[in-house]
Amino acid sequence: MKRVRVALLGCGTVGAGFVRLAQDERSRIAARHGVELDIGRILVRDPSKERPGVDPALLTTCATEALDGDCDVVVELVGGVHTAGLYVRRALANRRRVVTANKALLATHGRELFAAAAKQGTSIGFEASVCGAIPIVRALRDGLAGDSIDSIGGILNGTSNFILTRMEDGASFADALADAQRLGFAEADATLDVDGTDAAQKLRILAELAFEAPVRSVSVTGIREVTTTRTPSGVVRLVAEASRVAGGVALCVEPRVVPFGHPLGNVRNENNAVVIRGRAAGELLLVGRGAGAMPTAVAVMADVLAA
Amino acid sequence: MKRVRVALLGCGTVGAGFVRLAQDERSRIAARHGVELDIGRILVRDPSKERPGVDPALLTTCATEALDGDCDVVVELVGGVHTAGLYVRRALANRRRVVTANKALLATHGRELFAAAAKQGTSIGFEASVCGAIPIVRALRDGLAGDSIDSIGGILNGTSNFILTRMEDGASFADALADAQRLGFAEADATLDVDGTDAAQKLRILAELAFEAPVRSVSVTGIREVTTTRTPSGVVRLVAEASRVAGGVALCVEPRVVPFGHPLGNVRNENNAVVIRGRAAGELLLVGRGAGAMPTAVAVMADVLAA
Repeated sequence: MKRVRVALLGCGTVGAGFVRLAQDERSRIAARHGVELDIGRILVRDPSKERPGVDPALLTTCATEALDGDCDVVVELVGGVHTAGLYVRRALANRRRVVTANKALLATHGRELFAAAAKQGTSIGFEASVCGAIPIVRALRDGLAGDSIDSIGGILNGTSNFILTRMEDGASFADALADAQRLGFAEADATLDVDGTDAAQKLRILAELAFEAPVRSVSVTGIREVTTTRTPSGVVRLVAEASRVAGGVALCVEPRVVPFGHPLGNVRNENNAVVIRGRAAGELLLVGRGAGAMPTAVAVMADVLAA
Repeated sequence: MKRVRVALLGCGTVGAGFVRLAQDERSRIAARHGVELDIGRILVRDPSKERPGVDPALLTTCATEALDGDCDVVVELVGGVHTAGLYVRRALANRRRVVTANKALLATHGRELFAAAAKQGTSIGFEASVCGAIPIVRALRDGLAGDSIDSIGGILNGTSNFILTRMEDGASFADALADAQRLGFAEADATLDVDGTDAAQKLRILAELAFEAPVRSVSVTGIREVTTTRTPSGVVRLVAEASRVAGGVALCVEPRVVPFGHPLGNVRNENNAVVIRGRAAGELLLVGRGAGAMPTAVAVMADVLAA
C-alpha cells in the first residue's frame, strides 16, 4: 500500500467535496489503486466555520505549516491569482506535486508555473481547472497523444449555459441568473461567467494543451446582450472556439446560434461540452458536469491518484 | 530522446493506418513526447500484397522473428482469438508491453492475459479495443479513478448504428448493410456486428473496467428483426447497458426506442457513444468514431506512447 499525504489549501465548495470524496471512496481507492489517502493538513481562513464531515484537528490558518509540513501532494483550491500563485510557487520550490482547479491562475501564469514544475522535477495536475468532471486534459494529453488537433472548443461555462437554457424556456436573464446563484453554480459576482472571461480562460488552457502554440488573439463577447435564445434555425449558446492562425492560435468566445440537431444545441443547463477535431481521430464530443463540488472533486482526485 | 521499438503484428486496415499515423506524426511525437518511434518488424501473411507507404523490408511472415526480436512494444492487430492469443502470451512471456485492438481476445481471455502481464511486470494497452478514437479506457481508469461507477453503456457498435440510421432515412436493412460494407465499416461477414456480439464484447470490457466485479448475466439481441427505426416517441438504437446486480454485473444489448432529444438519439451513422454515470461525477457522455483505420490507430498510438 502506497501512502499519499495531501495538504489541502482551501476548504470551500470543492475542498469540502474533495474531503467527502476521499472519505466515501477510501476503501475502493485502497483496493483498486493501492493508495492510502491521508489528508494531513487543511488550510482555511476561518477555522470556526461549520464544516460537516471535516475533522477540525486538521485545520490550520498557517499557510507555511500546511505547505512546508510532510506531504506528497499540495491541492490548491483557494482560488484567485495572487495568494494561490504564492502557494503554488512555494509548493513547487519544495518539490511537491501540485494539483489545482485554478483556471485563472493557469491562464495568467501557467507557462511560468509549468516551467518551474519541470525545473524542480515535479508536476502540476490541472484536470479540475477545465470542465469539471469531463476528463478533457487526459483526453488531449494522453488519449490523443498520437494525433494532431485541428480545432477545439465547445460550451465551457456552465453558469452562462444554464442561464441561456432557462431563457430558452421563458425566464428573464435576471431570474435565470438568480436561479443559478440559488442552485450554487454561479458565484455571488457572476461577472466572469456572463461576460465570457471564465470560458476564455478555460479555452486558453485547452488551446495551449492542444496546439502547443502561442495565443495570438482573443475575442470575447458575453451573454449580457442576448435577448433571444431561440431562433427559427436553432438555439443560442455561448460557444468557445480555438483555431490555428498564422504563428499561433486565435481564441474566440461569443454567443452563436447553434442549429437544431447540432450536438451543442442539446447541451443544456449547467453542463459543459468539448468538441475536438483530430486529424486522424475525427470529431470527438465530451459532455458532462462542468462545475459543482463533487464533479470537480473527481477531477482533483484523478490528479492526486496519478503518481 | 527515448527510442520505442515496435513489432507490429498484422498490417490490415488498422495496421496500415498505424504505420501511416506513425509517419504523419513522427516529428510532432518526437517534439512533444520525446519519443522516437521505430517500427522494426511487421508480421503479415502475404508479403507480396500491395501496401502503399509500408517499407517492404520490414515485412516478415515469421511470427517468432517478429515476437522474439528486439522490441519494446508488441502491437497485436491480427484479430481473432486463437493465433492472437498465442502471440500475446509469447510477447508477455518475453516481458514486452502489449498493445491490442482485439476486443474478442480480451472479452474471452482478458482475465488470464492481464494476470500474465501483471506477473511478468508488464502491461496490456487496450484503448483501441473499445470505441475507436474515444479515450474511454483512460476516462474510466484515470479520469474517474476517484469515483464509483453506477452504470455504463451506450452505442458500442458503429456498423449497426450506421444501418439503423440509414433505415431511419428510408433504406432497407439489406441496402444499409451493403452501404456499410462498401464504405468499409462492416466486415464481409457482418454477423458479429448485427447480432449484437461485438457490442456485447465491448460492453464486457468496459464493465470489468468500471465495476471490477464478475459478469453474472449476458442478454443479447441484435438488429436483424428491427423493421421500424422511427416511432412517434423516438428512434431505435442498439443500446448496450451494464448495471450492478447481486454479486456482480448484468450486461444487456438490445434495440431500444430512444426518446427524441436524448443524447443517444443524436448519435448517427458509424459513431459510437458511451454514457457513464459516476456517483460523484454525474453523467458523462463521450461520442466519436467507433471504428475505422485512423481513429483506431490513434487509440493504438496512445497506448504505444504511454510508457
